[in-house]
Amino acid sequence: MITGQHYIGGHWCGQPQSTNTAFNPAQNAALPWCFAEAGEAELHSLLEQATAAFALYRYVTHSARADFLDAIATELEQRKVDIVSTMLQETALAQARAESELGRTCNQLRLFAAELRAPAADCSLPALPERQPLPRPALRLGKVPLGPVVVFAASNFPLAFSVAGGDTASALAAGCPVIVKAHNAHPATSELAARAIAAAANKTAMPAGVFTLVHARQHAFSEALIQHPAIKAVAFTGSEQLGMHFQRLIWQRPVPIPFFGELGSQNPLFVLPQYLAQHSDSFASQLAQSVLNGGGQFCTRPGLVFVPKGAEAFQAQLKQHFSQAQAGAMLTAKIASQYRAGCQALQQTESVTLLAEGQGGETACYTRPRLFATTANAFMQQGILQQEIFGPATVLIECADLTQMQMLATTLQGQLTATLYATEAELASARALLHELELHCGRLIYAQMPTGVEVCAAMQHGGPFPATTDSRYTAVGSRAVERFLRPLCYQNFPSQNGDTA
Amino acid sequence: MITGQHYIGGHWCGQPQSTNTAFNPAQNAALPWCFAEAGEAELHSLLEQATAAFALYRYVTHSARADFLDAIATELEQRKVDIVSTMLQETALAQARAESELGRTCNQLRLFAAELRAPAADCSLPALPERQPLPRPALRLGKVPLGPVVVFAASNFPLAFSVAGGDTASALAAGCPVIVKAHNAHPATSELAARAIAAAANKTAMPAGVFTLVHARQHAFSEALIQHPAIKAVAFTGSEQLGMHFQRLIWQRPVPIPFFGELGSQNPLFVLPQYLAQHSDSFASQLAQSVLNGGGQFCTRPGLVFVPKGAEAFQAQLKQHFSQAQAGAMLTAKIASQYRAGCQALQQTESVTLLAEGQGGETACYTRPRLFATTANAFMQQGILQQEIFGPATVLIECADLTQMQMLATTLQGQLTATLYATEAELASARALLHELELHCGRLIYAQMPTGVEVCAAMQHGGPFPATTDSRYTAVGSRAVERFLRPLCYQNFPSQNGDTA
Repeated sequence: MITGQHYIGGHWCGQPQSTNTAFNPAQNAALPWCFAEAGEAELHSLLEQATAAFALYRYVTHSARADFLDAIATELEQRKVDIVSTMLQETALAQARAESELGRTCNQLRLFAAELRAPAADCSLPALPERQPLPRPALRLGKVPLGPVVVFAASNFPLAFSVAGGDTASALAAGCPVIVKAHNAHPATSELAARAIAAAANKTAMPAGVFTLVHARQHAFSEALIQHPAIKAVAFTGSEQLGMHFQRLIWQRPVPIPFFGELGSQNPLFVLPQYLAQHSDSFASQLAQSVLNGGGQFCTRPGLVFVPKGAEAFQAQLKQHFSQAQAGAMLTAKIASQYRAGCQALQQTESVTLLAEGQGGETACYTRPRLFATTANAFMQQGILQQEIFGPATVLIECADLTQMQMLATTLQGQLTATLYATEAELASARALLHELELHCGRLIYAQMPTGVEVCAAMQHGGPFPATTDSRYTAVGSRAVERFLRPLCYQNFPSQNGDTA
Repeated sequence: MITGQHYIGGHWCGQPQSTNTAFNPAQNAALPWCFAEAGEAELHSLLEQATAAFALYRYVTHSARADFLDAIATELEQRKVDIVSTMLQETALAQARAESELGRTCNQLRLFAAELRAPAADCSLPALPERQPLPRPALRLGKVPLGPVVVFAASNFPLAFSVAGGDTASALAAGCPVIVKAHNAHPATSELAARAIAAAANKTAMPAGVFTLVHARQHAFSEALIQHPAIKAVAFTGSEQLGMHFQRLIWQRPVPIPFFGELGSQNPLFVLPQYLAQHSDSFASQLAQSVLNGGGQFCTRPGLVFVPKGAEAFQAQLKQHFSQAQAGAMLTAKIASQYRAGCQALQQTESVTLLAEGQGGETACYTRPRLFATTANAFMQQGILQQEIFGPATVLIECADLTQMQMLATTLQGQLTATLYATEAELASARALLHELELHCGRLIYAQMPTGVEVCAAMQHGGPFPATTDSRYTAVGSRAVERFLRPLCYQNFPSQNGDTA
């Protein structure tokens, strides 16, 4: 059922290599599927196809693009059983999570389709031929797609931020052909999602090169891809290290292009004393769930929790949640080993205490949840505390008072989210803290966990660097399409003739 | 009347240096005004002041910011006589141009003020606590200012793209303190405009560091300024060489920031045969005026004109306009010498002919207008023809037919504008050419000269690289404010409490 091939120019191609297998992290074993490895021939072919497709696809009407996106959602749903079972094998995620992520992925596609069918009116100004001292020409502000877009799929959302995920959906909605570099951690799931897109493209008669899937474990292929003049934008979700490597290559291009990198976030929570006194139990339980859910492998998982010093009841409750939690398999062996190395480095840091640790062995891809605590002074002095640990861990930072929290907030790097837990009375006194947090995040939350991102027009999933490389754009919600469009002003055209955007 | 000082933290400071004088290009003589040179002390002080101002200014209400912008316009108008007479001495531009540019500058300020008073409604979604399977939180999408902004003033718009110009107005409207690096070619005009801003800031009680003017001939000062962590965005209008130098420095920052560089454009015109046959006379006259006006020193001056081969009557008319034109003083000696060198290189290029040349000597800052012609083949082969010559010159490219024009259009670099002159019948047949031009420009024009940029919400003044470094933003019109804002999503806040943007 899984061929292990690329999808280029409307055809499946490439020779699967026995060394490139899918992997089951829960069982620490290779899966019986091999995948091809893209090289120069694939690069040349896919760029030619995407360029040719752009010349056609940018004129495909908004309503036909919407039909295409809806058809992808339908095709994904028809493959639901296969996709979910394959994803479970490749990712060790829970069945309910896989099913809900498939639902979200389809909802995202349909959201962009709905937006295409009911677009906001263009900004148009009629001519004022009699205006003094100078007449005004007729002006209309349209938007044109940038061109072929490369999407690097994320490891942690094998559907919603991957082959048919938000980046692909928004770029296709914008009128851009998409080239997806499949994530090596879920290549079979990627192939199934690509089959859904291919079927939808055929049924809605889209140009052959509108969508490409390539498998490439070697970074050299990706590097050549994003440096090629035919590529007009790149979306990436992954580590700061790899993301900034790609960003620097893009900056070396003779013609710079937008790079939308989502590179990591610690998602700090600030908890004020009265709130904690009144809700110690429920807050501890919600926090543990938000950190531990899905192995803590969410970009919005709270990794820093600024709490009042001496909240012993709360700490006891939280420790209980963490020590009762079981070790689980991470998405990949690399994520597991980086998590363990990060936790070890943290534990060896002065003034950092391991408060609690989960149950079970840490062999292969399995890791134990961990709860750390530290002091406000240590947070100021130890740079390691501002490095994201991707996985089921969080750090409590014990603060003397609101003023100290506010001071620590000034030192935060850019974040996707920042959250304040406070009673309504405390909220009024915390304005200065909120004002500070506004400078450091893309989403500011009152008394809710940051995990769980609503896909809608009002969402901002993007924050100051290093959370993202361009805080003016969102990767989630209908405005994500703006990443792949630029404005074009049409001046003095008779009755919309001669312009297409 | 001109002190030659910087304006930092609400005070005039710095010691004018006898070597840094203003210059009168029309008379090729120094003006009796000396200017200070910013160094490390000024850098430290202005960054401290701008940072402190941002902490206050970002909470200044939209209506108070609007009052500030309106007050700047009023103060500029009150200084009109001084500003215009000073600008004439420093720039050799015509009085009518200086007066209209002052008017435009005031209009821009008032446009941003009006937008601040009547902002578009935020995107807000109410909570849906009963929604299944998950409730929706209340979400509101606000916008927050980026922080202190550096503006490099342009040589060619000493008012509208300079100290109190569009970049400054839009950044102040966004809630960002502004640091203007005065252009060395009009430092006295800059001081007068800064006095207007200073007076307006005082009258409307703005924080002291909300606006800074510095004089600095040494690039080292500018380099240190744009690399400093306190600076959150940079707007630049000037040469591709200097702009990309600054861009590369910004890319080296640990935390990247937006750089809005407007770097040059050739603004191609395409003229179809029937149109030219019917309007030869008026088109020649409009084209000559658009190229020659203001010494051709406009970013939207048409520098490439693709015409049907053998349009002899038109060429004769155009030659007459150019040969009757008088040499004029350019903005600076450097612009004049670069213009002459560019024309000389063009004249020595194979298959390029000098069709006509204006009257008068080319001493010092003075240059003669020039009209060149070349073949379609030469345009394809000679890279020099795709280099902007800033000044009163243009090149006719003789094309066999529409298909050849379309082919040449595919080779164009990014442009601010592209223009098609065609009859309505020809327009229908030129759709493929227009579609191609859409890929290369930010404003597409039918049968009007590109010089003259309407300041409004529908304008796009920005195009693919190298016209600008970020084609998704405009430097002209009300949307210019978006360059200095980023979205922030507020989640679950009770009745707008706790958020400010």
